[in-house]
Amino acid sequence: MKARVTVTLKSGVLDPQGKAIEGALKSLGIGGIVSVRQGKVFEIELEDAARGDAEAMMKSAAEKLLANTVIENYRIEVSG
Amino acid sequence: MKARVTVTLKSGVLDPQGKAIEGALKSLGIGGIVSVRQGKVFEIELEDAARGDAEAMMKSAAEKLLANTVIENYRIEVSG
Repeated sequence: MKARVTVTLKSGVLDPQGKAIEGALKSLGIGGIVSVRQGKVFEIELEDAARGDAEAMMKSAAEKLLANTVIENYRIEVSG
Repeated sequence: MKARVTVTLKSGVLDPQGKAIEGALKSLGIGGIVSVRQGKVFEIELEDAARGDAEAMMKSAAEKLLANTVIENYRIEVSG
């Protein structure tokens, strides 16, 4: 089974990397952009387990390692 | 409206960062992990436009700037 953990900055937190991308897109002539925020995605292949167990394990992974919960939110999707 | 562009390494490409995360999760006692691959996600706020136009614009952004299409795949989702 597969899990995807998406980690994004919380809304109050400045994202200079996103700002730089926004500027670069504008200078490439790609208009209509209001804002860009960059995050991380972890695509994790798991051994088969009950869906609830897999979700709990991914929550633990996100809290302990993948996200800095002071400044980042995370979202977990388990499939298959 | 919002767009999300997810950029991940192509399957043949080595991902040392993902390998390091895999090792760290194992050493934290989080078992059942087969593999981890890290990617990037760009959450983009767009001015209102026809869905097709927004998708075409995001495709252009991904090809020109957000993804290195030699080693990376990208996926575009437009919503709202």
